[in-house]
Amino acid sequence: MIAPDLRLLLISNSTVFGGTYLGHVLPVIKTFLSGTSSILFVPYALKDHDGYAARARSAFESIGVELSSIHQASDPVAAVEAAEALFVGGGNTWRLLKAIQDRSLIEPVRRRVRGGMPYIGSSAGSNVSAPTIKTTNDMPIVMPASFEAFHLIPFQINPHFLDPDPNSRHMGETREERLVQYLEENDVPVAGLREGAWIRVTGGQAWLEGTTGARIFRRGSEPSERVPQDSLADLF
Amino acid sequence: MIAPDLRLLLISNSTVFGGTYLGHVLPVIKTFLSGTSSILFVPYALKDHDGYAARARSAFESIGVELSSIHQASDPVAAVEAAEALFVGGGNTWRLLKAIQDRSLIEPVRRRVRGGMPYIGSSAGSNVSAPTIKTTNDMPIVMPASFEAFHLIPFQINPHFLDPDPNSRHMGETREERLVQYLEENDVPVAGLREGAWIRVTGGQAWLEGTTGARIFRRGSEPSERVPQDSLADLF
Repeated sequence: MIAPDLRLLLISNSTVFGGTYLGHVLPVIKTFLSGTSSILFVPYALKDHDGYAARARSAFESIGVELSSIHQASDPVAAVEAAEALFVGGGNTWRLLKAIQDRSLIEPVRRRVRGGMPYIGSSAGSNVSAPTIKTTNDMPIVMPASFEAFHLIPFQINPHFLDPDPNSRHMGETREERLVQYLEENDVPVAGLREGAWIRVTGGQAWLEGTTGARIFRRGSEPSERVPQDSLADLF
Repeated sequence: MIAPDLRLLLISNSTVFGGTYLGHVLPVIKTFLSGTSSILFVPYALKDHDGYAARARSAFESIGVELSSIHQASDPVAAVEAAEALFVGGGNTWRLLKAIQDRSLIEPVRRRVRGGMPYIGSSAGSNVSAPTIKTTNDMPIVMPASFEAFHLIPFQINPHFLDPDPNSRHMGETREERLVQYLEENDVPVAGLREGAWIRVTGGQAWLEGTTGARIFRRGSEPSERVPQDSLADLF
């Protein structure tokens, strides 16, 4: 059962190969945000907040949405309370989550999004929409107080999901092997979102969209494939 | 200044492409352990401790070293205190570190190794020889009490170090980009050990060995290359 008010757009990656920043999803974002004229940006996943906010502002302005960045707000919690919509950008998931926790934003964001505020996440911003960041690909460059994140959805996301390369001579674990290890320790399903894929949750429904599909991992089952336009309601 | 008693063998990866388990390093391990007839194995990085110990036992027996596994010891701390040498196997660094912390093994291992007990680490086992596990490649499938590890060396290791693939269309961060992010948040050098490389510390000296070299990352400097047989004493 998906709450009819829940509005999420969870994007695997902000830039596809050869594309521009958010270029492959701007039409979708425009539709998703219809009726919304402004958005609050969370730039904490990258070190250069000003530069990151400028890049995001330029993309959103091109679809007629005014963007302000939370790092320029004197009171970040108040900024969340006042926001029309939220966009959490990609980068390093650990740096992002620690900054969110340090500013006591978990509860306010969760409450606002559960109350119907549209949430857009890309890459690390999609990771933090899950119960925990235990399925991030990122290097743990800083230690957050806990691995618990916004928990806007009841399953995990692995963004930038990568199929094994049959020609690789590299002996590090494949992405699938890493996710199987995750399921050895945790009984929560994972959606491996390939680059170019995203999840849209609106009107009490959840859809896989984009061009590349997703691979679903559940404890005790073989991984299964989903193709664009498949429902993901069974993960809720 | 490297303590003259310190004996470390820090291996990037246990199996090179097309090879057998530890095959590329068994002659080096044999020399490194000369005068030592037994070794204590730490299998916590994989879920199947029995199977992992059997695989490691077979490799060490082939060079005349008796292997016992710490997971079969009734008192793991006592097993460390009694060990002649230690081998920490690869797998998931998070699972490994949490198990080490849960069994209160950090201090006993650190004291024994600083006192001259030979330490062999492979992949995750090399990660935990560093001050922290902040340069692991692994998925954070469990949460340890802290990111602090054995701290047997004063720098970080990134095992399975991977150069960028110029033909890749994948948009996830390259390994180098991830390590640059690490240095944005931490001022501790990192040795990126390519597969097939290892670090040997004996007799108050530290050497890069193997076939593939390493890339050294320091805050404020361009990354630099080291080739096999180079000294790494400047990292200490």
